[in-house]
Amino acid sequence: MSATLLPLPGIPDVKPGDDLPRLITRGLETAGLALRDGDVIAVAQKIVSKAEGRQVALDTVIPTAEAEALAEETGKDPRLVTLILQESRSVVRKRAGQPGVIVVEHLRGWVHANAGIDQSNIELGAEGASALLLPEDPDRSAAELRGALEAAHGVRLGVLINDSFGRAWRVGTCGIALGASGLEALKDLRGAEDRYGRRLEVSVVGLADELAAAASLMMGQAAEGTPVVLLRGFPGVLGDGAAADLIRPAAEDLFR
Amino acid sequence: MSATLLPLPGIPDVKPGDDLPRLITRGLETAGLALRDGDVIAVAQKIVSKAEGRQVALDTVIPTAEAEALAEETGKDPRLVTLILQESRSVVRKRAGQPGVIVVEHLRGWVHANAGIDQSNIELGAEGASALLLPEDPDRSAAELRGALEAAHGVRLGVLINDSFGRAWRVGTCGIALGASGLEALKDLRGAEDRYGRRLEVSVVGLADELAAAASLMMGQAAEGTPVVLLRGFPGVLGDGAAADLIRPAAEDLFR
Repeated sequence: MSATLLPLPGIPDVKPGDDLPRLITRGLETAGLALRDGDVIAVAQKIVSKAEGRQVALDTVIPTAEAEALAEETGKDPRLVTLILQESRSVVRKRAGQPGVIVVEHLRGWVHANAGIDQSNIELGAEGASALLLPEDPDRSAAELRGALEAAHGVRLGVLINDSFGRAWRVGTCGIALGASGLEALKDLRGAEDRYGRRLEVSVVGLADELAAAASLMMGQAAEGTPVVLLRGFPGVLGDGAAADLIRPAAEDLFR
Repeated sequence: MSATLLPLPGIPDVKPGDDLPRLITRGLETAGLALRDGDVIAVAQKIVSKAEGRQVALDTVIPTAEAEALAEETGKDPRLVTLILQESRSVVRKRAGQPGVIVVEHLRGWVHANAGIDQSNIELGAEGASALLLPEDPDRSAAELRGALEAAHGVRLGVLINDSFGRAWRVGTCGIALGASGLEALKDLRGAEDRYGRRLEVSVVGLADELAAAASLMMGQAAEGTPVVLLRGFPGVLGDGAAADLIRPAAEDLFR
């Protein structure tokens, strides 16, 4: 029993309206791979957002007064901060600085920096720059992708949309599941027994996050980016969970 | 380019003083695998702790008054809570309940529940029960394991000791790197360019944690446990980092 991660070659620069299932299918063909029952397709958030037209030209954003103040405090573009606040329920933490930090609770419940808005292409005050928002509903995006891929290939799949989040207490980002479909996103092992026949006390595993972290290792972050990875042979991962299952409700959270 | 995860078969129940490099070598032989340059061996914290004799018989623990009070509040065994407090610098959060929650800052800097002490075999007040503490210095344990395996097999390796931590904001545990040797534990991509030639702004990746999450998927948590996994073909992972690099200093942390 082993598992394999296969990055798909030749996924081109994605544009609004692009047909991701078709691009993925072409990538599979280029690699000479046929999908099998139980395979998981991991797709980088960036290309899902791009295909869904979530790019916003910063020139079209009129900064709010609140955003102007927070932008000044954190050394960020006020148009970007306007978008961050629009995408968020609340600011969970901020730290002044050049650059500073803005950690928010996103409209969909994620706690993360900058509402997940990609900044790699935003220079302070630059003209013609654009920001990339997260997909509107990544679980829905994952379900649609899965439906299209399952229909095209005649197999039962899991689909994962992964992003990189910073963490409390630990340095460095880690891949997490932003959207998921067909996966046991949260694996509840309570009641299972360990190898000595004792009941496991605390054992709810964020399985979709572990899969996302694994996929992230193969996607690369920079020039070598391969935004789609086929995960094959991971045991017990298919199910009917969603990535929203992995968001801890604010009322149960000790850290916001 | 693909990567593979291969759980090693036949690793027996580990006892204090057991020679892990020898058990791992035997597992490799059983699987018919020869180590190659660039391979990473991931080992579950539990078997490292056991081999290092970190099991404590609860009958030998005399509860402190502070532990008695916290045990009462959180529905835990006062002897266990005594060990948790001994292993910690401070209690970061607690929540009353039966069971409640104790989140600490461990002596080595990790922020996690119960100082990482395994509770799967502890029943409240039971006689003859024992607790399993984390290895004293997991980075040192990883370095020793690596030295022995590299010498025995004549290859350049990475070694990872992984554990499962709960997270702020997200439900479910996720594999993290408790110890590491020979790995670029924290991958700094700042200054690298993305595929459009733009400089990446925020891109320090917790690579060793992503590897640990991937390994964790193959280890299982319950009866099917396979505590050693060979990771092969992950790009750009060898280096000279340690898992301690992944611990965010308290002074830089917004969430404790």
